[in-house]
Amino acid sequence: MKELRVELGDRSYPIYIGSSALRQSNILATHIVGSEVLVVTNETVAPLYLQQVLDALAVEKVTVCELPDGEQHKSLQTLNSIFDSLLRNRHSRKTTLIALGGGVVGDMTGFAAACYQRGVAFIQVPTTLLSQVDSSVGGKTAVNHALGKNMIGAFYQPQAVIADTDVLRTLPAREFSAGMAEVIKYGLLADADFFSWLEDNADSLMQLDTDALSYAIERSCEIKADIVARDETEQNVRALLNLGHTFGHAIETVMQYRGILHGEAVAIGMLLAAHMSALAGDLQNEEVRRVKVLLRACNLPTSPPRALDREDIKSAMLLDKKVTAGSLRLVLLESIGAAKLESDFSQMLLEETLATVF
Amino acid sequence: MKELRVELGDRSYPIYIGSSALRQSNILATHIVGSEVLVVTNETVAPLYLQQVLDALAVEKVTVCELPDGEQHKSLQTLNSIFDSLLRNRHSRKTTLIALGGGVVGDMTGFAAACYQRGVAFIQVPTTLLSQVDSSVGGKTAVNHALGKNMIGAFYQPQAVIADTDVLRTLPAREFSAGMAEVIKYGLLADADFFSWLEDNADSLMQLDTDALSYAIERSCEIKADIVARDETEQNVRALLNLGHTFGHAIETVMQYRGILHGEAVAIGMLLAAHMSALAGDLQNEEVRRVKVLLRACNLPTSPPRALDREDIKSAMLLDKKVTAGSLRLVLLESIGAAKLESDFSQMLLEETLATVF
Repeated sequence: MKELRVELGDRSYPIYIGSSALRQSNILATHIVGSEVLVVTNETVAPLYLQQVLDALAVEKVTVCELPDGEQHKSLQTLNSIFDSLLRNRHSRKTTLIALGGGVVGDMTGFAAACYQRGVAFIQVPTTLLSQVDSSVGGKTAVNHALGKNMIGAFYQPQAVIADTDVLRTLPAREFSAGMAEVIKYGLLADADFFSWLEDNADSLMQLDTDALSYAIERSCEIKADIVARDETEQNVRALLNLGHTFGHAIETVMQYRGILHGEAVAIGMLLAAHMSALAGDLQNEEVRRVKVLLRACNLPTSPPRALDREDIKSAMLLDKKVTAGSLRLVLLESIGAAKLESDFSQMLLEETLATVF
Repeated sequence: MKELRVELGDRSYPIYIGSSALRQSNILATHIVGSEVLVVTNETVAPLYLQQVLDALAVEKVTVCELPDGEQHKSLQTLNSIFDSLLRNRHSRKTTLIALGGGVVGDMTGFAAACYQRGVAFIQVPTTLLSQVDSSVGGKTAVNHALGKNMIGAFYQPQAVIADTDVLRTLPAREFSAGMAEVIKYGLLADADFFSWLEDNADSLMQLDTDALSYAIERSCEIKADIVARDETEQNVRALLNLGHTFGHAIETVMQYRGILHGEAVAIGMLLAAHMSALAGDLQNEEVRRVKVLLRACNLPTSPPRALDREDIKSAMLLDKKVTAGSLRLVLLESIGAAKLESDFSQMLLEETLATVF
């Protein structure tokens, strides 16, 4: 069992990573605040792991709130059903929420914890690779609005995160690969050695080798934790974590979030960022090739599943900009392992980049 | 113009108090963050003061969101209409929300600001006496849930509060009195001299004398700010601000929030707390009488408008307890100007107390 600490002053917390982490009931017990627990999970995860969590709990009062599965349910309306569970069962401020599921369950449970009686404790038990390496660090919680993703939320830190590598055995292969996209992202933006390690160990990871998984999750969380500790509310360096995401969001938007997973869109987005960095004269063509090869080794796409219109992608990127910031900033690469923010680039460079894929 | 600073580290902010505060456009301009503004107001306040606020703004983009008036609209659904306005008008993270209205508008706008894109700036322009002395200090924001008041919210501080005493001239007399209940509360729980000053100046206040109003608002905010600075998230002393509120909430609950204003229920609640403190041997009967006389001088009720069942009141008090804390804690008085938290009292004492009114 590995234990990694996310350093955020009085909001610091540990991430436990490893095989059987969930079976060690003392971990959960240590981090529960108060004598009441609400477990939030979904219809897919509940049959697999809910009993295991319930068995590990020894508190006076436990309530379960089972949500429908899927990003389309990440809404204020579903959030309200968590509040319904809390209030119908008269949960006091001394309640700890446990998020048992992937990113959607984690984001909503964290936001519900941030808001219920103006803030109660919560623990994350991420059950997908993506949520283990992404949403378990950083405290970003949110729900979607009909007019924009993650538009309503809070920065709110958990008491602890328990990333059990065993739960990945029940994760569909395509979702596992989507999680690998974010793992690769950390190497690409901040750690050339880790990127090389991923190239060497892609096969073991794809075969769910426990030690390889633990290390990949640990190093990913470490890199993210280091960046988040320096910039909790995304005023500057935290934006580097968006590598591949502006392109990726545009692809998801144009595809209306159908037929592509977030991690898959990010994979294509990272390749676009690599192409753009090469066209700008920063990245070597050989490095672009390495990115492509590693993505493929993890069964990730390097182009969209169907032809998309380049102008639609451009519009979607500009729309993204209008709502979230003043100007279009992209995360580009100086080399494998070194990213930078760039808002001063030519339209022609962007056009050329999009032409490599669309 | 008076300027009072609420000291909360890097979340400190000023409260401007006085006649014509709203007409001084530089005050608003100083505290707006970014180049976009959303003014949230309601159908009652908009015709009176919206133009004045719009005239004082000199930013690129201004949107107005007008809500229906009334506590029954303090819901997640109405909150979502604020998000609709923000997203439909593509407001970026560089937006400042301005809350122009009473407590309901302030609570919802503050919570919307806390959540929109995980937090944008907001400025409070409270237009009722109650919101000027209560919700303008302390950063409690919230909406109601069908199963409980203020159950969903955040602690979130504004950039500034502008309490213009002139706006109180359009406030219905009954609502002005309800605000006076909270003003009296501050003297009663923390400052005997202020309580005496209120006894001496009740007539001037009721006649809306500008200087008297400014002083009463300033001293109220000072007392609240001092307590909040010592205990921002209500772990201990902040609970003293609930003087009269546990009894008051019970009255409101039994009356289903109809036919009684919050401040009126608090007035009756404070008198009950005074009675209980006298029965416990702490407060002098003469002091109880002074509380009653001052409430009456401010046209506040000292008993409910209709007969209420004592058992219903007791059940409502116990319900309040179950959801928000482990045991029933009341704020009692040692003398005028000195309050204390008490959870160790006999059922008989509570019965006797309720019998003085119900």
